[in-house]
Amino acid sequence: MKKPLYILKIGGKVLSDPAQCNSLLQAFSKIEAAKILVHGGGKTGTEIAEKLGVEAKMIDGRRITDEAMLKVAMMVYGGLMNKGVVAQLQAFGENAIGLTGADMDVIRSIKRPVKEIDYGFAGDIVKVNDERLLKLLEEGILPVMAPLTHDGKGQMLNTNADTIASTVARSMAEHFEVHLIYSFEMSGVLKDPSDQDSLIPLLEPDSYERYKAEGIIAGGMIPKLDNAFSALASGVHRVYICHSSAIGGLNTNTFRGTQIFLS
Amino acid sequence: MKKPLYILKIGGKVLSDPAQCNSLLQAFSKIEAAKILVHGGGKTGTEIAEKLGVEAKMIDGRRITDEAMLKVAMMVYGGLMNKGVVAQLQAFGENAIGLTGADMDVIRSIKRPVKEIDYGFAGDIVKVNDERLLKLLEEGILPVMAPLTHDGKGQMLNTNADTIASTVARSMAEHFEVHLIYSFEMSGVLKDPSDQDSLIPLLEPDSYERYKAEGIIAGGMIPKLDNAFSALASGVHRVYICHSSAIGGLNTNTFRGTQIFLS
Repeated sequence: MKKPLYILKIGGKVLSDPAQCNSLLQAFSKIEAAKILVHGGGKTGTEIAEKLGVEAKMIDGRRITDEAMLKVAMMVYGGLMNKGVVAQLQAFGENAIGLTGADMDVIRSIKRPVKEIDYGFAGDIVKVNDERLLKLLEEGILPVMAPLTHDGKGQMLNTNADTIASTVARSMAEHFEVHLIYSFEMSGVLKDPSDQDSLIPLLEPDSYERYKAEGIIAGGMIPKLDNAFSALASGVHRVYICHSSAIGGLNTNTFRGTQIFLS
Repeated sequence: MKKPLYILKIGGKVLSDPAQCNSLLQAFSKIEAAKILVHGGGKTGTEIAEKLGVEAKMIDGRRITDEAMLKVAMMVYGGLMNKGVVAQLQAFGENAIGLTGADMDVIRSIKRPVKEIDYGFAGDIVKVNDERLLKLLEEGILPVMAPLTHDGKGQMLNTNADTIASTVARSMAEHFEVHLIYSFEMSGVLKDPSDQDSLIPLLEPDSYERYKAEGIIAGGMIPKLDNAFSALASGVHRVYICHSSAIGGLNTNTFRGTQIFLS
C-alpha cells in the first residue's frame, strides 16, 4: 500500500497575515505523513511592486510578467515569503527546504509561447523531477515550493502555484497516495458564494456535472474543479478545497470543506 | 586521501554585473570537484532598500539590521540574487540548490546579544549542519548559500557571507581537502592598494607578521587575513584571495592571486 502524501497549496492572502499563517503552518506540521507545501504570491508581491514603481501589466485581464515583475516575484515569492515559511516550519519541528523549480532542477518549464498574448516570463511546466522530490521526502524533508520555475538555460519563470501543486501531485501519485489540498478564503465549494454555510461537502463527477448544468457551480470555480478532476484522473487520491483554517481537520477527521473524488 | 572541495565566496558587486557574474559562474562550474558557493549582498540590496524607502541604519560605522532591512535581505539575497545564481549554474550543467541557513536547518545561529550596540536581526553562527551539506555534495549537488541564517524559532537572521564561507569551510574540513576562495575586486593582497601589480602571491604566518609589522598589510585586510589563518589552523587546506576573474586559473594551475597557507 502506498503511504500518504499531503500536498497543500496556500494562497498569498494567508501568507500576508502572520497570525493566520502561523496557525495554518502549525496545523499542517501536525499531519503525520510526508508533506509538500506550495505557496502562491498574492498581495505582498503587488504591494512591493507598487513601492518599487513596477507597474502590474495586464492584457485582456491576464497578468503579464515583464522583466521587472519577474524580479519582484523572485524577491517576494522566492525570498521573503518562501524563507519566512521555511523558518516558521523549522520552528514547528519540520525540516523544511525552500525550493523554486531551479533548485536541484525540480521543475523545468518553457517560456509560454507567444500566440495572441505575450505573457512575458511565464513558465509552462515541462517536467517535475519526482525522483528528487521523493528523495527529499524519504529523508523526512518538507519541500516548500515558490511559484517560480526555470527553463534550464538560466532563465527563471513565473509559474502559477495551483498548477505547480496539481502537476507535482500527479507526478508523485506513482509513489504515494496523494492528498491535494487547495486552501483559500472560503469554506469550500459553495452553492451560494455569499453563504459560507452552503458548503458542498462531497463532489464527484456526476454531482459536479449536475451543479454545473444548474448554474450552481460557475465562473472561476470551474477551471479549479476541472483541474481537480483531471488530477484525480491522473492518479491523485483525493482533492480538497477548503478554508485555510480547516487544515487541522485533515489530521483529526473533522475536516470541513469540499472533498473531491472519482465515484 | 580526502577529496578536494572548493568553497567560493563572491561579493555583491560581481553579482550586480551580469556579464562578469556569468563568466565567474562559468569558470567556477568548470572546476571538477565538489563545490559550494557563498554569495554576499552588496549594492543591489542597498538600491532596493532605497527604492522601498528603507533606511540603512548605522551605529558607529556598523550596519544595523532592523526588521525592514531584514525583509530586504530576505528578498534580495535570499530570492533575487540566490535564485538568479542557481538558474545560471543550472544552465552551466551544475545541479545547484539555493540555501539559506533555515533550509534543511543547514546553519543555525543566535541573534547577536546586545552589548554596546544592538545589531538588530544579525545572526552569529552556532552550528553548521555538515552532515546535510556532505549528503548534498555526495549527490553531486552544488549548494549556493545566501547570507542569511535562522535561529530555529522562526526568525531569519542576517549573517555575514565571509563568516558563512569560513565557518562552512572549517566544518567541511573533516570530510574534504577544503580550498576556500574569497573573490573580490582586487587581484589579491597587495603591497600597494593602488597598484594591482604589487600582488603578494604567497602568504604564510611569518611573512604575514612581517608585512603587518612593516605596515604594508593594514586596515580591513587584517581581519580578513586573521580569519583566513584561523581557518587554516582549523584544518582548511588552502585559502585564496583573488579577483573574481581569477577563478578560472584555479582549474588550470595558472592562478593569479594570493595563496595563503601554514608553513
